Amino acid sequence: MTCELRVVPIRGLPELEEGDDLGALLAEAVTLEPGDVLVVAQKAVSKVEGRVVSLDDVEPSAQARELAGDEDARRFEVILRESREVVRARPPLVIAETRHGFVCASAGVDASNAKGPGTLVLLPLDPDASARRLRERLGELTGVDVGVIVSDSCGRAWRRGTTDVALGVAGIHALLDLKGRRDSTGYELHATEIAVADEIAGAAELVMGKTDGVPAAVVRGLSVAGEGRGADLVMPRERDLFR
Amino acid sequence: MTCELRVVPIRGLPELEEGDDLGALLAEAVTLEPGDVLVVAQKAVSKVEGRVVSLDDVEPSAQARELAGDEDARRFEVILRESREVVRARPPLVIAETRHGFVCASAGVDASNAKGPGTLVLLPLDPDASARRLRERLGELTGVDVGVIVSDSCGRAWRRGTTDVALGVAGIHALLDLKGRRDSTGYELHATEIAVADEIAGAAELVMGKTDGVPAAVVRGLSVAGEGRGADLVMPRERDLFR
Repeated sequence: MTCELRVVPIRGLPELEEGDDLGALLAEAVTLEPGDVLVVAQKAVSKVEGRVVSLDDVEPSAQARELAGDEDARRFEVILRESREVVRARPPLVIAETRHGFVCASAGVDASNAKGPGTLVLLPLDPDASARRLRERLGELTGVDVGVIVSDSCGRAWRRGTTDVALGVAGIHALLDLKGRRDSTGYELHATEIAVADEIAGAAELVMGKTDGVPAAVVRGLSVAGEGRGADLVMPRERDLFR
Repeated sequence: MTCELRVVPIRGLPELEEGDDLGALLAEAVTLEPGDVLVVAQKAVSKVEGRVVSLDDVEPSAQARELAGDEDARRFEVILRESREVVRARPPLVIAETRHGFVCASAGVDASNAKGPGTLVLLPLDPDASARRLRERLGELTGVDVGVIVSDSCGRAWRRGTTDVALGVAGIHALLDLKGRRDSTGYELHATEIAVADEIAGAAELVMGKTDGVPAAVVRGLSVAGEGRGADLVMPRERDLFR
């Protein structure tokens, strides 16, 4: 059982460019310990992976113009291209299911902390693959076995505000399944799954912030090593009561 | 800005009974520091507040029998009594809006970690008032100004697993509003609210667990003092795209 959890922000990273060796930059910025979970903001990963779009290159469709209301229709065109389905739209707010199955505002397309005005950052093509690559690179460089989460801020149904959640996961459990375990009164817990990777991503957000340029944090003191994936956290459509 | 966050579980509390002085028990179990946020599991608060129901005292209605499927209809009767509205039902799963406005499975009614078989624990009548009382009691006993969160596990739409969220809040911000702040590229953030109290509750869950009998944790190192309420985190019905 965990005795104490520490969450340490990682500072001092340069402005990231496509092709940068994010693993090397992170390994230089922090001394990792076995069992650490490194949480990296999706935007940092997307930038080094070149998942950036210039609005100048985008021609909006009629549907994008309709969704945009008074706003820039090119942004909505990019959102539609990233979406499998628009779940709810109240222009200019669009909640969409991404091609990965995540349901989030603007299909994860974001103008803040982008590469300057006129650019948008998209989600990684495969956040689990991004997490795995980063984990492997960190292992190569440091010899230390760590978990990796690629995180992003996400709104929720019924509750105000965003919390950070895990889009990509490597080397840890995404879900902790308590089924069959007993509580302290002997009552057997049924079907209780805890989304530990999302809780870890949220804990990291508390030290990363949105405006501070802290793209990563280390969460230390957990015992969550495993083979989870961010995809584990997506509710399968056939079990989802809210789609 | 936060340098480092620590999350410390609080152990050694006795089995709680109605009328117990939870503040005194917690103050004895941990040395609080100014600015700490004490996260207490809803179930601990509900027990000392006597929010426990014996199934023997419950007569199920026809609606409860229908929702129950093959399960104990008395439990569903209690869920219905705690609900303002059933949001989704796929028997025996019921997602309900509680009288407080929280949308959660079984309206927060829980059999695990209850007072033994045949009892159910309900949510506090007013979790914000519970948090305020606990904060005042801790201030009285220790002279230290802390924040308090009354937390509970909650499912989400579209994502698997539960995360802990803040039902009641005292002495801290529940939401951090970044509107008008600029990101590191100078882009002005619009309407970004971070549900910090939910992220803190989730971080605490990582050291509390569900089966370990650790009903509380201290989160240390944040600067979140404020006058938030758990009610701030409830999406007003008129803005909610998912009800």
